Amino acid sequence: MVYPGARHSRFHHALGALHLMQKAVETLRMKNVEISAEEENGVYCAILLHDIGHGPYSHTLEQTLIEGMHHERISLHLMELLNIEFSGKLNLAIEIFKGIYPRKFLTQLVSSQLDMDRLDYLKRDSFFTGVVEGNINPDRIISTLNVVNDELVVDSKGIYSVEKYLIARMFMYWQVYNHKASFSAEVYLTQVLKRAKELTDISATSEALNYFLSNSIEKSTEENLKYFVQLDDSDILSSIKQWQNHPDKILSFLSRSLINRNLPVSQIGNQKFNESELELYTKQAAEIVGVEDGSYFVHQSKIEVVPYDKENSPIYIRYKNGDLHEITQSPQQILSTQLVNPIQKFHLCYLAVKKKSS
Amino acid sequence: MVYPGARHSRFHHALGALHLMQKAVETLRMKNVEISAEEENGVYCAILLHDIGHGPYSHTLEQTLIEGMHHERISLHLMELLNIEFSGKLNLAIEIFKGIYPRKFLTQLVSSQLDMDRLDYLKRDSFFTGVVEGNINPDRIISTLNVVNDELVVDSKGIYSVEKYLIARMFMYWQVYNHKASFSAEVYLTQVLKRAKELTDISATSEALNYFLSNSIEKSTEENLKYFVQLDDSDILSSIKQWQNHPDKILSFLSRSLINRNLPVSQIGNQKFNESELELYTKQAAEIVGVEDGSYFVHQSKIEVVPYDKENSPIYIRYKNGDLHEITQSPQQILSTQLVNPIQKFHLCYLAVKKKSS
Amino acid sequence: MVYPGARHSRFHHALGALHLMQKAVETLRMKNVEISAEEENGVYCAILLHDIGHGPYSHTLEQTLIEGMHHERISLHLMELLNIEFSGKLNLAIEIFKGIYPRKFLTQLVSSQLDMDRLDYLKRDSFFTGVVEGNINPDRIISTLNVVNDELVVDSKGIYSVEKYLIARMFMYWQVYNHKASFSAEVYLTQVLKRAKELTDISATSEALNYFLSNSIEKSTEENLKYFVQLDDSDILSSIKQWQNHPDKILSFLSRSLINRNLPVSQIGNQKFNESELELYTKQAAEIVGVEDGSYFVHQSKIEVVPYDKENSPIYIRYKNGDLHEITQSPQQILSTQLVNPIQKFHLCYLAVKKKSS
Amino acid sequence: MVYPGARHSRFHHALGALHLMQKAVETLRMKNVEISAEEENGVYCAILLHDIGHGPYSHTLEQTLIEGMHHERISLHLMELLNIEFSGKLNLAIEIFKGIYPRKFLTQLVSSQLDMDRLDYLKRDSFFTGVVEGNINPDRIISTLNVVNDELVVDSKGIYSVEKYLIARMFMYWQVYNHKASFSAEVYLTQVLKRAKELTDISATSEALNYFLSNSIEKSTEENLKYFVQLDDSDILSSIKQWQNHPDKILSFLSRSLINRNLPVSQIGNQKFNESELELYTKQAAEIVGVEDGSYFVHQSKIEVVPYDKENSPIYIRYKNGDLHEITQSPQQILSTQLVNPIQKFHLCYLAVKKKSS
Repeated sequence: MVYPGARHSRFHHALGALHLMQKAVETLRMKNVEISAEEENGVYCAILLHDIGHGPYSHTLEQTLIEGMHHERISLHLMELLNIEFSGKLNLAIEIFKGIYPRKFLTQLVSSQLDMDRLDYLKRDSFFTGVVEGNINPDRIISTLNVVNDELVVDSKGIYSVEKYLIARMFMYWQVYNHKASFSAEVYLTQVLKRAKELTDISATSEALNYFLSNSIEKSTEENLKYFVQLDDSDILSSIKQWQNHPDKILSFLSRSLINRNLPVSQIGNQKFNESELELYTKQAAEIVGVEDGSYFVHQSKIEVVPYDKENSPIYIRYKNGDLHEITQSPQQILSTQLVNPIQKFHLCYLAVKKKSS
Repeated sequence: MVYPGARHSRFHHALGALHLMQKAVETLRMKNVEISAEEENGVYCAILLHDIGHGPYSHTLEQTLIEGMHHERISLHLMELLNIEFSGKLNLAIEIFKGIYPRKFLTQLVSSQLDMDRLDYLKRDSFFTGVVEGNINPDRIISTLNVVNDELVVDSKGIYSVEKYLIARMFMYWQVYNHKASFSAEVYLTQVLKRAKELTDISATSEALNYFLSNSIEKSTEENLKYFVQLDDSDILSSIKQWQNHPDKILSFLSRSLINRNLPVSQIGNQKFNESELELYTKQAAEIVGVEDGSYFVHQSKIEVVPYDKENSPIYIRYKNGDLHEITQSPQQILSTQLVNPIQKFHLCYLAVKKKSS
Repeated sequence: MVYPGARHSRFHHALGALHLMQKAVETLRMKNVEISAEEENGVYCAILLHDIGHGPYSHTLEQTLIEGMHHERISLHLMELLNIEFSGKLNLAIEIFKGIYPRKFLTQLVSSQLDMDRLDYLKRDSFFTGVVEGNINPDRIISTLNVVNDELVVDSKGIYSVEKYLIARMFMYWQVYNHKASFSAEVYLTQVLKRAKELTDISATSEALNYFLSNSIEKSTEENLKYFVQLDDSDILSSIKQWQNHPDKILSFLSRSLINRNLPVSQIGNQKFNESELELYTKQAAEIVGVEDGSYFVHQSKIEVVPYDKENSPIYIRYKNGDLHEITQSPQQILSTQLVNPIQKFHLCYLAVKKKSS
Repeated sequence: MVYPGARHSRFHHALGALHLMQKAVETLRMKNVEISAEEENGVYCAILLHDIGHGPYSHTLEQTLIEGMHHERISLHLMELLNIEFSGKLNLAIEIFKGIYPRKFLTQLVSSQLDMDRLDYLKRDSFFTGVVEGNINPDRIISTLNVVNDELVVDSKGIYSVEKYLIARMFMYWQVYNHKASFSAEVYLTQVLKRAKELTDISATSEALNYFLSNSIEKSTEENLKYFVQLDDSDILSSIKQWQNHPDKILSFLSRSLINRNLPVSQIGNQKFNESELELYTKQAAEIVGVEDGSYFVHQSKIEVVPYDKENSPIYIRYKNGDLHEITQSPQQILSTQLVNPIQKFHLCYLAVKKKSS
């Protein structure tokens, strides 16, 4: 909707993250970190499958049609089913994925502040959007990784690469992930699916999507999964295309807005938007669309980004003399100390009132 | 199906070709080629819209559902409709597109051996597939373009860039456009749509696709166009997904093969494959699928590539002393003379016979 | 001495900065900033010649052999001589270079926080050293430049590119320009030339260098310039190679250290190094080299970097509604406020005491 | 003199070729080619040192000052000296370098049609000159290398990469290595050194260069080597700078031409240039320079390039079924058959006669 080049897929990302993991294992072994063949295989499977639980328009779907199924839980569930099929060969991968394998760094390579997941998606998203401020250098960062007491650390020569990476991630948040127009598109997609689920006389273009529209999903069951894995973008897209002509005015208005890329007005601000302002917009929206309830077209969200999540996932710098410093405590650091506080912004979208020509 | 990175779209290509056209106009003006504001606008619109007549899976569709509508004819038709909407502002663009505008080089920039269309798609396809042998340098080639007697020519310093471009294009044909697996996928897609159109108890997931399945399309009418422009990949994909369970065994087998990327055996050879071999494969296929007619699953095609189409679209090299040489006649040329002969190969796909375990 | 790839020259830089200036002029004109043909020519000549006063190993030479001649003064002097040769055609270039031309933005394009000089050398130095943390995107930054009241400003959509640029510059300072080993090499080069000038029985391999060794240079005269423009790296290098065998032990030790890349121990610290420590090192050096005065081999320097020099060269962000905010005052800014304070570090080099084998 | 970006050094090249060799060893081992630790070390040392015998302006020097010392012979001599210093640790490297080690592929990795030397310098020269037609992809080519019967071969999937590489090499020859202006500069450099050696009242700026000017060098002796390894570009350059004012008119004219980049007229033609034409130019040159013998300023050379040297260094393609085809015999080949014939051209340089204004 915003960056026309950004057509890369999760399949790319899974392959890319696996590729980076192979480099990480090779690097660590060259630094005399012992990694057994089983561990190597386990960490490869874990990263390859880490996102397998994402459905089409994943975060949106999670908030609407499959509220009870979180994508990480689905990933795990699918890995467990695969594990049965492969007679337990994924045991170690699952332990690493769940974070219960004793050698922590293997889990950290899959999920942490410096995991292969982030290294791949930041590089990839920066590349395909063309937002060069978000460009990072995964090869360089990986070449500075090391392991101390089974925990992932960064050799001191990599400190600036890490600082640059934390800043690049922040730039991606404000220029891409929370871009006001793509944020609005996501809001509308959420509203479309929510509305569709509310309606009783609704049908989608696929049996699988119909299943999720007409059932309340409370958790990841085998029945749910069976339908879930059949879903892809074309189910959602072809249904929304069809709903453009649905008699429910709310559904058809939202659907047409998305298909014709006729997005609402969007704003990002440093303060929460005013309730009375929102009420006015809601009333105006009802009038414009010709419905009683205008609330589907007005939406405020809080956006919070923590540039460096020191609490949950601290980054340690390792010096040649054996010292370990959390990055904000390192003598060389230039910017890390500025990156620990969360940044909050607010997003609002509403319908524009067309000015009448006199 | 073959190069997972190749997810770029025609929309990208249209923007890219426009971008190159802007560079070409700028370059030619710097070389004192007069181009009026109207001509500039015309050639920009012509290149921006040159592919607008492509539907989803364009070449496949043309051979199945919309036999009477060729994409260039549709492009022209849509441009004419836009021209009405814009009160004639596309007049010049249409003349350039049709090749009836007297200043030939403007048409050649849109459609010739060195047009902005090819420069963009070769670069783009090489980039997104990762096939570096096909990488070309559009900026460099454009910087060597010139105009003599209203015809497009290449300044002599650009001769090696042009030779390299002709060779790169050939590499793309043998490594990408005619890749044996993607060729097979295209054959199967054609067969799916052909079969679907033959069946009477068939329905697609969209009204638009249903229209083309149930009507014989002989030419580009306004009625046809109305449905045509509603089609996109999701109509085709969601329908094929649904057809996986259709009672017609031919349709469901082809559909499942595509959705599960379970492609047939593919071969490319220098000679035509033997008829008796094909008959055998056809009989085997009938058995494997459990149908009477196995011909849907066996397919031979002739592939012909002309590296440099000297007859229809000669490239002229311009020397500082004013001489013009067709490239194969240029004293500097290294490879062009080798590139004028068409290269013929043959593609065959058929179903593998599973070996029984004893 | 540190980054073997960094063999780019000032000639490259002058061409590159000119190239960026051409883009800047083109961009500004497209934004309806009027720039006359004379101004265009003036600003091109100014940037092309801005560094013409640099001699070989410029900053080192300025501190030793040509103390009275600052490179900016020499640049101006040479431009004035060229101006005579070209009958005044450089008048405007000289006004822009001196900062006395009334339209300030032209001078700012040559010399300011966002001038074409910096955009080129940061990009170039990052590229040739391979220090990707310092990579910037001059094209993107230039595309966001604008002019308000004849002052250079940045359109609001460019704010993150500018923040990234300020950070990248800082990374270059700590990873390249003030790299401890290259810093030491510069110290030694300074010491070699200082020592050579102190000696009376010295000769260099060129008449020009001999001139500067045997004369005290108090300002830029025509006589001085005549010799100055004959100097290049080969004069310095071939002389130092020869001095390796000079009877003066200080000179020959320093010369051999440089030619054999046998650099002293280097440290960078956040505090000033202790005087008594320095005295000890000086005494040890005297012993090691076998001379009375060890001070040539021990050197402390203060390094100060201002990431964003808000006082002398503030950056203004221009919003669509006409507002102008100095970047740290902009509502969008993420990092600028952190970049206004100078960062101080200290560099020390000294000779290592070889450990005796017992 | 022609491509200002081309400032890369042999030191870069040696490191780059070593880097590629490491990739090659890794690739071959992954394909189950056994390479012992000694062989690995040997092939690394061989490639790292393969060019160590090159002096400044190597090919020119070989034809003038050190006629009896060929650079490969010097490389070997220096490796043998190093081998003494390292107590025989270079034995295997020397065997590989000399081509007497039984496992041929190790020597082929150092010196053959597809050696790491060429892969590095073609990529590097293309990159630093900006001649994109010569760009190759060493990583891709290396990934397709394999070994059959201890000989280096190419897996069939790499055939187009190899064809592209052979063509790229040819483009480099005609656009860079035999560029008419750089060819002329090389001719002049040769003439300068030849003339300097002929003169008796000559001195260079270094003892080492003086040695080679006043002695006739018939082979690589330890005495010769002692001086040879002291030479670098600065000896040659600072001497030529000095010779600009030498009383010998031939020497000073040539020296000034080089220092001021005032190169002669250059032509490249498909036929040998006419003797009578050359005589005329020689007479004119004598007049222009004011000397009796004008032959120093007129020079014809034959240039011969074999795109693919099938005789001496055939490339074999290996198919999955075990077949080996020399590349021109491969069924897939597109261009190789066109690349076996040598291409001959002739270079001429002479002094331009200034036109008198009437």
